[in-house]
Amino acid sequence: MSTIAPARTKRAFNFNAGPAALPLPVLERIREELLDYRGTGMSVMELSHRSPEFEAINNAAEQNLRKLLAIPEDYAVIFVQGGGSLQFSSVPQNLALPGKPIDVLHTGAWTAKAISELKKSFLYNIAASTEAEKFTRVPRAEEIKLSADASYTYLCTNNTIEGTQYHALPASAAPLVADMSSDIASRPIDVSKFGLIFAGAQKNLGPSGVTVVIVRKDLAERADKNLPTILQYRTHIKEKSLYHTPPTFAVYTLGLVTEWIAAEGGLPGIQKRNEAKAKLLYDTIDNCNGFYRCPVEKSSRSLMNVVFRVGGSSNQMGDESLEKDFAKGAAGANLVGTPGHRSVGGMRISLYNAVGQDAVEALTGYMREFQRTRG
Amino acid sequence: MSTIAPARTKRAFNFNAGPAALPLPVLERIREELLDYRGTGMSVMELSHRSPEFEAINNAAEQNLRKLLAIPEDYAVIFVQGGGSLQFSSVPQNLALPGKPIDVLHTGAWTAKAISELKKSFLYNIAASTEAEKFTRVPRAEEIKLSADASYTYLCTNNTIEGTQYHALPASAAPLVADMSSDIASRPIDVSKFGLIFAGAQKNLGPSGVTVVIVRKDLAERADKNLPTILQYRTHIKEKSLYHTPPTFAVYTLGLVTEWIAAEGGLPGIQKRNEAKAKLLYDTIDNCNGFYRCPVEKSSRSLMNVVFRVGGSSNQMGDESLEKDFAKGAAGANLVGTPGHRSVGGMRISLYNAVGQDAVEALTGYMREFQRTRG
Repeated sequence: MSTIAPARTKRAFNFNAGPAALPLPVLERIREELLDYRGTGMSVMELSHRSPEFEAINNAAEQNLRKLLAIPEDYAVIFVQGGGSLQFSSVPQNLALPGKPIDVLHTGAWTAKAISELKKSFLYNIAASTEAEKFTRVPRAEEIKLSADASYTYLCTNNTIEGTQYHALPASAAPLVADMSSDIASRPIDVSKFGLIFAGAQKNLGPSGVTVVIVRKDLAERADKNLPTILQYRTHIKEKSLYHTPPTFAVYTLGLVTEWIAAEGGLPGIQKRNEAKAKLLYDTIDNCNGFYRCPVEKSSRSLMNVVFRVGGSSNQMGDESLEKDFAKGAAGANLVGTPGHRSVGGMRISLYNAVGQDAVEALTGYMREFQRTRG
Repeated sequence: MSTIAPARTKRAFNFNAGPAALPLPVLERIREELLDYRGTGMSVMELSHRSPEFEAINNAAEQNLRKLLAIPEDYAVIFVQGGGSLQFSSVPQNLALPGKPIDVLHTGAWTAKAISELKKSFLYNIAASTEAEKFTRVPRAEEIKLSADASYTYLCTNNTIEGTQYHALPASAAPLVADMSSDIASRPIDVSKFGLIFAGAQKNLGPSGVTVVIVRKDLAERADKNLPTILQYRTHIKEKSLYHTPPTFAVYTLGLVTEWIAAEGGLPGIQKRNEAKAKLLYDTIDNCNGFYRCPVEKSSRSLMNVVFRVGGSSNQMGDESLEKDFAKGAAGANLVGTPGHRSVGGMRISLYNAVGQDAVEALTGYMREFQRTRG
């Protein structure tokens, strides 16, 4: 994509949990266009959000997502600010029905954050929780106790901190609402099974600063019109994400990333790559005679965030000093972002779309060498 | 700053109202670092927001603002998402006291938006309004009728659409709260006169997608803890703007822009330039025998957004067909963003910090030529 000379430093193998690796061709394109967006004489950051150029960028980003995810016509796709964290309150503010509880499948730190917002003002029901098992798996179908009259059923499809992911959707008569921040666009999904999907862009779709909300249009009409205008989904649907000044650069980058995904074979192509990357890493962990251990039940293992412990004795606890050395050695070998979330420790390897097979090969090579010398 | 060859197309003279012109050295620096942020092997967009590199970026952005605006120690500076439009509800949600009205100085479209959020759930009082005069000036001191026990007094220091600006602050016993989106960092201010200042970055401070809130710390403690966590100022104060994933690239760019302002002589230097740019344009308007007419009363004229009509007969109404031709001809002459806001028509020239004197000279030259051939 680029005609400019490559950067001077070697690209890092980037396993950050988000913000995360972006595709190199996207970064090169951004650099190429940075001072002059396609002959306008302005950076994309300097374009008016009411200009035809930005309207085209905004529309392309939406259309790319619609095509990739095969989003049906009766769903709106909007770009908002505030990340998943704002959605923890926006979703119930917009979708809760009076007297009808919100059913929640509790699977870790991110659903806990959503629950703590529900506690403040909403009727809710923990329909399932794997907390007793330290969130090492997602709930089984038979464990889920849904309300008869729920406003909606809430889940987090991929749990970045715990390294779990749903590989089948729970059945629910009420609309399913998913925090899909960390696995959107990593595999094909059936959008029609959901009432609402939200996702911060900073894992699989672009930089931080823009949040995608995909919502069935009729559900967006549930919101009380006394809710702040900017917090009503209907506002952004009506104004095509231009109710106020959008985060233009982030939307532009999301458009380029989705274009890149399409060129890489769309979601089926991306899924195949993501499966191969995760298989290589899990196989390395599983075939090391216990030096590395993934605490997650096999059927719930995430293809996006692979967590494991190093040394030590139990599945839940590694040798913390060895784990520090692992991370330090990894950084020295150009492998960035290997430590686990500060709340749980251990290691965490994020394998989002833009992380290449070469990165996982470099990592697993490092793991074998680390075990050989320190195991 | 840059060692990379310049862009191929001539830079536009950019008078957009926001997102707006950015300093060329900032754009060049971004381009230079885009693939490799200072030897990390990653783009700044790919850095973890928990990394030491991003923490340094975040701290520098805050410290730059503190120095430029001489922000006292008892004020917090936080970076949030959602733009000024989210602040229209966040400010009263955090700062309104039970039974104590919010005094509002109503000066145009932006205060109208703030008022429409207050209408939904808050006690408020229009302490002054210049609506009867079509917002062609800000209120005079003697017109302002403040409540005895207001929660705070709200104003918009610069009105982008109407082209007005306060050149002296109204007296108020209650904390002054200012929407300063379009004139923050364009001139020195006395922060200690305010309880809270908010500003979207996309005019004088950077790209869209990040909002600066400067708030006296004691006032941030007024908020009900049942407010969504992410909407409480205290959350972001406590977490130093890292409660959730921040818009990292926008914060980085804001840091570069504030660094540039400091290098250009800080706010006194910037103010001098802004005054000279505005003087040249207003003089051109005032000395054209009425072909161009600024409807704004002289004492309220904005240094940031200069509005005027072309042809026609009244101050409020130009010859719309001539105005269309003006904008079209301007665009042809590399002068971008001259049309007024779609709600009021006419012309609007935004002269934010990054717009150079050369741009205003090019514009006023075009204006004289347009008048010569079409006047």
